[in-house]
Amino acid sequence: MKSYRRELWFEVPTRRAFVNITGEVEEAVRESGVQEGLVLVNAMHITASVFINDDEAGLHHDYERWLEELAPHQPVAQYRHNDTGEDNADAHLKRQVMGREVVVAITEGRLDFGTWEQIFYGEFDGRRRKRVLVKVIGE
Amino acid sequence: MKSYRRELWFEVPTRRAFVNITGEVEEAVRESGVQEGLVLVNAMHITASVFINDDEAGLHHDYERWLEELAPHQPVAQYRHNDTGEDNADAHLKRQVMGREVVVAITEGRLDFGTWEQIFYGEFDGRRRKRVLVKVIGE
Amino acid sequence: MKSYRRELWFEVPTRRAFVNITGEVEEAVRESGVQEGLVLVNAMHITASVFINDDEAGLHHDYERWLEELAPHQPVAQYRHNDTGEDNADAHLKRQVMGREVVVAITEGRLDFGTWEQIFYGEFDGRRRKRVLVKVIGE
Repeated sequence: MKSYRRELWFEVPTRRAFVNITGEVEEAVRESGVQEGLVLVNAMHITASVFINDDEAGLHHDYERWLEELAPHQPVAQYRHNDTGEDNADAHLKRQVMGREVVVAITEGRLDFGTWEQIFYGEFDGRRRKRVLVKVIGE
Repeated sequence: MKSYRRELWFEVPTRRAFVNITGEVEEAVRESGVQEGLVLVNAMHITASVFINDDEAGLHHDYERWLEELAPHQPVAQYRHNDTGEDNADAHLKRQVMGREVVVAITEGRLDFGTWEQIFYGEFDGRRRKRVLVKVIGE
Repeated sequence: MKSYRRELWFEVPTRRAFVNITGEVEEAVRESGVQEGLVLVNAMHITASVFINDDEAGLHHDYERWLEELAPHQPVAQYRHNDTGEDNADAHLKRQVMGREVVVAITEGRLDFGTWEQIFYGEFDGRRRKRVLVKVIGE
C-alpha cells in the first residue's frame, strides 16, 4: 500500500469565499503514483469546508445567501461562542452544512468523477493563512 | 490491496425521491472479495445525495417537507444559478444538507452496520439517467 | 494492509449532548499499529452524529439552539415518522446536518489534525445505550 500527504495553503482576502482546488488535488494524486485507491481532502480548520459541487458563479452566490439565512453572521452577540472574543460562531455552523471533507475514488490514476464534480475549499472566516490536507492511500 | 469499482444507474421518474440501494452496495462488496476494508458510495451528480438513514416512509416524507422548507424549489427565480436556464438550484442546496457520499466499513466481508442503517440515493433533480459510484478498497 | 475495528459505547443521560471522543479514537489508532492510513469513525445509530469541530461550551450551546431552530423536537405531531410511535423524527433530521461520519488521515501513527480539530459524538435521542464504530485501515 502506498500513501501520500500534501497540505494546500490559502489566505482568502475576504471573510467568505469558495476556491476551486480540483487541479491541486489532481496534481497530488498524480504525484502519489496511486492508480487505485482513495483520496481524503479535508479542511484542517473548523471554520472552513471542503465540498464537491458545481463551478458556477450564480450557484456560489446562492450558497452564500442561503448559508447567511441559515446561520447569519450578524448580530454576532446572538452566539455564545462569540462571548469568548471571537466573531466567527456562524462560520462553525456554516461549515457543518457544507461539510469538513470529501473522499474521492482514484481509478486508473485519476479522480473518478462525474462530469460536473469539482472540489471546493469553502472559507467562512478568512483573512488569515489556513490549510487543507490531501491524503492518498492505495496502490 | 484489492480494489473494485461499480456504477449504479438510476432514472427516477419524479423530480425528487429516495431509493434504498443497500442491496446493490452489499452485492458490490461481495463481488469485490474484500473481507476487511472500506467502501465509498457517492453520487456522481451534484444534484443528488448518498446518505444513510432509516427506511421508513414517514421519515422520508419528513425529509422531503423539511428540505423544501430549507431550500424551496419555487420560486425558481430566487436563485442566480437558475439564470443559466436551469431550474435546479434548490437541488444543489438540498444535496449539501443530505451529503454527497458515505464511507462504510467492511468487516468479515460485509457492511459493518448498526441495526437500522440503510444506504439511500437521494434524488433532487430526477427524470433523467444519473449514477452512483461504488468503490471498494481493502483485502 | 492492516485493519482494526473497535466499538465505542455511550449512554447519554439526556436527550441531546455532544461528547468528545478524540482520546478514544487516538487510542484505537495506537492499538491498530497503523502508521499511514485512514480511520473511519461513524455513528451506528441513525439519530446520532460523529463530527469534527471545536471543544468549546459556548459553541455547543449555539449548535444545540441552532439545530432546534432548523429541526425542532416539538410539536412531535408535526412529523409523520412520529406516527409510528416514536418521538425522535427531529433527531433523524439533526443528524443529517451534523453528519454520520468522519474520515481522518493517519500520518506517522497519529491523527493528522489541525490545531483545533476534535472528534465529537453528537447524541440527538439519548437515554439508551448506543455505539460508534472506529475502523482503521493502512499499514
